[in-house]
Parts: sequence; C-alpha cells; structure tokens
Amino acid sequence: MPIGKFVEYEDASPEVRAVYDDIMETRKVDWINNFWKALAQDPATLKRTWESIKQVMAPGALDPLTKEMIYVAVSVTNGCEYCINSHIAGARGKGMTDEMLAELIAVIGMANETNALVTGWQVEVDEALRRAAQGGK
Amino acid sequence: MPIGKFVEYEDASPEVRAVYDDIMETRKVDWINNFWKALAQDPATLKRTWESIKQVMAPGALDPLTKEMIYVAVSVTNGCEYCINSHIAGARGKGMTDEMLAELIAVIGMANETNALVTGWQVEVDEALRRAAQGGK
Amino acid sequence: MPIGKFVEYEDASPEVRAVYDDIMETRKVDWINNFWKALAQDPATLKRTWESIKQVMAPGALDPLTKEMIYVAVSVTNGCEYCINSHIAGARGKGMTDEMLAELIAVIGMANETNALVTGWQVEVDEALRRAAQGGK
Amino acid sequence: MPIGKFVEYEDASPEVRAVYDDIMETRKVDWINNFWKALAQDPATLKRTWESIKQVMAPGALDPLTKEMIYVAVSVTNGCEYCINSHIAGARGKGMTDEMLAELIAVIGMANETNALVTGWQVEVDEALRRAAQGGK
Amino acid sequence: MPIGKFVEYEDASPEVRAVYDDIMETRKVDWINNFWKALAQDPATLKRTWESIKQVMAPGALDPLTKEMIYVAVSVTNGCEYCINSHIAGARGKGMTDEMLAELIAVIGMANETNALVTGWQVEVDEALRRAAQGGK
Amino acid sequence: MPIGKFVEYEDASPEVRAVYDDIMETRKVDWINNFWKALAQDPATLKRTWESIKQVMAPGALDPLTKEMIYVAVSVTNGCEYCINSHIAGARGKGMTDEMLAELIAVIGMANETNALVTGWQVEVDEALRRAAQGGK
Repeated sequence: MPIGKFVEYEDASPEVRAVYDDIMETRKVDWINNFWKALAQDPATLKRTWESIKQVMAPGALDPLTKEMIYVAVSVTNGCEYCINSHIAGARGKGMTDEMLAELIAVIGMANETNALVTGWQVEVDEALRRAAQGGK
Repeated sequence: MPIGKFVEYEDASPEVRAVYDDIMETRKVDWINNFWKALAQDPATLKRTWESIKQVMAPGALDPLTKEMIYVAVSVTNGCEYCINSHIAGARGKGMTDEMLAELIAVIGMANETNALVTGWQVEVDEALRRAAQGGK
Repeated sequence: MPIGKFVEYEDASPEVRAVYDDIMETRKVDWINNFWKALAQDPATLKRTWESIKQVMAPGALDPLTKEMIYVAVSVTNGCEYCINSHIAGARGKGMTDEMLAELIAVIGMANETNALVTGWQVEVDEALRRAAQGGK
Repeated sequence: MPIGKFVEYEDASPEVRAVYDDIMETRKVDWINNFWKALAQDPATLKRTWESIKQVMAPGALDPLTKEMIYVAVSVTNGCEYCINSHIAGARGKGMTDEMLAELIAVIGMANETNALVTGWQVEVDEALRRAAQGGK
Repeated sequence: MPIGKFVEYEDASPEVRAVYDDIMETRKVDWINNFWKALAQDPATLKRTWESIKQVMAPGALDPLTKEMIYVAVSVTNGCEYCINSHIAGARGKGMTDEMLAELIAVIGMANETNALVTGWQVEVDEALRRAAQGGK
Repeated sequence: MPIGKFVEYEDASPEVRAVYDDIMETRKVDWINNFWKALAQDPATLKRTWESIKQVMAPGALDPLTKEMIYVAVSVTNGCEYCINSHIAGARGKGMTDEMLAELIAVIGMANETNALVTGWQVEVDEALRRAAQGGK
C-alpha cells in the first residue's frame, strides 16, 4: 500500500496540474499513472523529475525503445516491480516484441551472473579493455 | 588482486584451450581477457559460461550493440568495475559513440533515481500498466 | 507469506517473553510487531538483535529521528517493504512531518542517481575529498 | 581509471563554465571535483544534475547536514566509494563530528542487517505499522 | 502478476516438453514450477538455464544442501521472494532443519551488517588476508 | 583509503584491548585485522559486533565452514572486496579446497542469474513451494 496520499487530477493545485497536462500531452495519453500522483505530494520533485525524464528519455543518439529497455535492465536488477511493469509497458508501446523481451531478460540474467563471477574471483581489469573502454586506441 | 591462479593459454589443458580458441575465433581477437582466465580454474564453469554468453549475446531479435548496452546498465547498477569496462569496450567495438555512451549513463542514472522514488513512496502498479506489460490489450 | 511460525506472546518461552516485555516497555507500546515474532523462532537472534537495536538507536551524538531517517534511506535502497513501512512509522512517531518525508525520499532518489552516474563514469576520488573525508586538514 | 575524458575548466565550453561557476559560487569553493568534470562530457546532464542537486540539497524541512548523512547511508548501501568519500567530506564540512560519523555507520550497518533478517523470514507488514507509515491514525 | 504467458505442459512444444520431462525426472517430482513455465516462453533460455542449474547444483565438492543454502543467501541479499521460497523449500527437502534455517538467516543478516560496516569505514584488505584468500602461504 | 584513524593495539584503551585480546584468543591468531581496528574508533560498536559475530559464527546446527561460505555468498552479491577476501581466507582456514571455492562461486553466479530471470518475468510463488518453504506439508 502506498505511503501518504496520492494526488488526483481533480484535487491538484494549478502547479501540479500543469505538470500532469504536460505529461499527458507529451505522451499522448489521457490519464496519469500512480508514480506521478505519488510524487505530486512534493510538487518540486514532481516538476523536476518530469522535466528530467522528458529530457533523458527523448530521442537522441539512442532511440526511445533502446532507452526503455535500458530502464528495464536497471529496474530488474534493483527488483522494482512497479518500474519493471511500467517500462516493459513503455517498451512494448514503442515496438518491443515478445522475442525482444525474452532476449532482453536473458541478457539481464546473464549479466547478473557474470557480474557475480567476476566479483567472486576478484578479476582485475585488463589494460587493453580499460583503454578500449576509455575510447583510446 | 584476483583470487586463485589464473590460467594462461600456455598452461591450459586441452579442454580449456578449446574454449580459449573458440573465444578468440568467435570474437576475432588474438588474446584472452582475465575473466576467462579466472573461470578456467573451473573448466566446467568456463565452458558453460562461454557457451551461454555466445548464445545470449549473438544477434537475434536484439542487435549485439543493444545487448552490450543492456549489459552495461546491469553492471553499473551492480557496481562491477571489470564488467563496466569490458562491456563499454565491447559496445564501443560495436559502434557505440561518445554521445550514445553519455545517454546510456544518463538513462541508467535516471532509472536508479526513479526506482528509489517508486520504492520510497511504495507506489502500486496501475492496472493499465500491468495489462500493457503483459502484452494484453 | 512469512517463513516458519511466528511466536505470539502467549506461546512464548520465558526467555522470549522477557525480550518482548523489554521491547514494549522501552518503546512504550502494548503490542509486538511481526519482526520480533519472526526472530523469536531463534531466541538467541531475537535477544541479540533487540539489544543491538536498543543500543544503536538510542539517543547519542545523533538524535533518534535522524537515526530513523537513515534507516529509511537504507531500507529504500535495499527495497525492503517491511522496513520502509516500519521505519517511516517510527520516524513519524518521533516527529517527522510530511514535508520532511518528501525531502527524505527526494534525497534518497537523488543519491541513487548520482551513485549510478559516478559508477558509470568510473569517477576517481579527488585527493582533497579523500583527505576531507578522513577528517584530515 | 575514469571512462572518457574529463573536462577541465580551461577546456570547458561557456555552457559548462557557467555551471562550474555556479557550483563554485554556491559551495564557496575554488575548484571543481571530478564528478562534475565527468558529467561535463554531457553538458545537458551536467546542468540538469547540478540544478537537481542544488534544489534537493538546499535547506528545507531537513537541514543540509541531515541530507548529507542520508546521502552517505545510500552510498554505503550501494558501495559507491567516490560517493562515500565526497558525502562524508560534505557532512564533516557541515558539522558532523567523529562521534556522529561512528553512529551514522553503526545505524547503516544495523539497518542492512535487519533488512536482511526481515527478507529472510519474509515478514509481513503489520497493519498498525502500515497505517502509521501512511500518516493515518 | 507475471509478465507474458506461462507455458503449461499440455500447451508446450516437444522441445519444451523434453526439458519439462527432464526436470521432473531429475527432481523426482510430478509437476513443473512457475519459474520454468516463465522461461519456456523463450525455449533456448529454458534449455540453457536448466542444463546450467543441473550442472551447478549437482553433488560435487559441495553437497546439494550446502548449495541450496548458498542460493538462499544470494536470494535474500537480492530480495527475491520467489527464489527465497523455492530454495528454502529445496533446502528443507534436502534435510535443512528449523535450527539450520534460523542459523542460515542469522549469518545472512550478520554478513549484510558487516559488509556495510566495512564499506562505511572503507576498510582496506590486510595483506595477510589477501594472501590467505589467494591460497598462498 | 580508510575513513578516520584506525586503532592499533598499542594505542587502544583497556576496553578496546579487552576485545582485541578476546578476538586473538578465540581465533588463535596473534594479530588484529583492519576491520576491527576500524570499528575500534567506536568502542561500543566494536564490542557489540564482535560479540554478535562470535555468537553467530560459532558451531551450531551449521558448521563453521558452511557459515563462512554463506558469508562469502552475501559478500560477493554485495560486491564487498574486503569481505570477500576475509571470508574466503576464513573458509580456506576451515578446510575449503580450491574445488569447493570454484563450486561456491559457480552457485553464487547462477543464483544471481536466476534471481534476475525470476524478477524479469515477475514469477509468482507456487503455492506448493510456499507451503514447503514454511515447513508445512
């Protein structure tokens, strides 16, 4: 059960409504999901978080679908049920097929395994990999 | 410093060498990175892990670059230095530009923030998002 | 659903009852919450954990409300629903207002984001920060 | 070793310099720490993150020292070395004594233990705690 | 609620049925638990994961009960409710008593506490411990 | 680099020395490792933590080697380098062979993978597994 009292559109201050309106317009939906209603208890955080999300998730060097799948990868690793559901929903809305979802989860699983193997054996970064990661040659 | 004694090619058993050879051939490189040398202390895990990675990271419904970026997202969230370096290196080798890397890290950061906000407010999954995540209509 | 069989006051051994009585007296409540009933399956862990909590959460250089908010920060980062609820309840009981809760969650969110950004870019500790952290000059 | 190429003040674009200047003025310091130099590779993220931090960490219902200690709690739980050092440094600069630091770490340790005990026994939230967390009576 | 559509035995392809049959035969049970039905949406991951589990959890230098308890330790630390239940069930089936379970959870709790204390104080590995961990003398 | 100033035996108060002496006597060693020297900055936490460790890690329903391996599993999952080294050292001192270590790390890796797969697919606990976990029939 959520903490506090979520803010419905009809009970929202003009400041909160302005954010809600922008969310609905930007995403072309006609409702507000619980995440924003929770944040609206703290209008400054609502506004800041929405503006950040809008900037970060906009098309750029990475396309929006790839960004949603990266979001899913983080959310699964953190075990955040809400975030897993909302970003898988988001990714599906941007074209993720069942096959892509299955591969996404398989990669997340494998990455969590090899992260643990690396940590267990305390493997040190190869000099060549470090240089390549830095973009050097 | 790594745990145990890593296995160099020249000291490897035929079983381990066969895996090393397949890694180098598949990846078109002429050296073996520390991760595999650590696993080679346990040849069954070396073979199983390599075969799993080969299957999971092969081109499929998702392209190999997207898979590397998903790997980076998990590795950053888990704080695995080796894995961050090796998979950023892998992603760069598959075409990730500096701009893509910057957006990748920005999305990972944002996802970790909103995961925490959701958890802090104990936000419950909206029924509509759940249905959408399941692929229902 | 919980693992095992929780221990109610009326079924408790004298050893467990003594801890339950001390919990209720110290906290000035007339009931025992589920956490302790779970631990009571293992009386040594019950006693040790209660004595540790009593020592750690007592007023000292930090006041009890600050300690409860630190507890919330850890619990949100670990995603422990029970702990989030019980320590937000504890903090409210010690004077945390809705505004303080909102700021607490905002800081937790931001910290999780910048932790990930630091890790993603593999930022090295500045010498000056390290000295300052150590309390040196 | 850090990923990419950090941006020094003398090499920074006017956009990045404006943020650097604001950081130094706001914090009353005459140098820029590595975190910001890493983010400056992506000026949009630099600006957004600084503005978010400035808002979130400003005095409000919680004082700045309490906010720094909450930051430390998250950073320790995530194992982020840079963040632990920089926010312990920040907390010391705002008046945290050695005694307060020792209690802070003790609470973080205890919280991580009881989070695990709760999860291990799969303890369910007591109805009374849930109501209290929600701020109900 | 699970993502996607789980695969029941009667709807399974021959390839998936072959894995289901092997699971039931190896474990001497007459039903398939939800984990495998979820993975069966992606038959390659189902087959690979089952073969890996079969190899890793087989009796070897460690007995199967010890392996199940290690699995519980990881699952509690990650907060995976399904995994905690399924591997405690597995451990009980291999002889874990209530007393052993209580000690297992107590160790997991203590380890999570001291991990945080070590990280909070940024304790450096003693040379002698490092050598001992490596198996040197 | 560690936070604060670690406490050497020769600089220790009688209260801290008493704990140091008990550690050395109980473990039959003639030196104190860094973990305790860090905690000794806060004598109450030093004493409490040592007494807790002594109780939790003593032989009981689980043998000391199994307990050390459980400690390693938690420490790898949390990515605590100090703890990984110190508890692998501890386990080796209690008889863990190279083969056992390799299997231990393999199980930890696999558990982290399947935890993520379960979370990604949001698998619900089977009623039969839940009952078995509770010890019911």
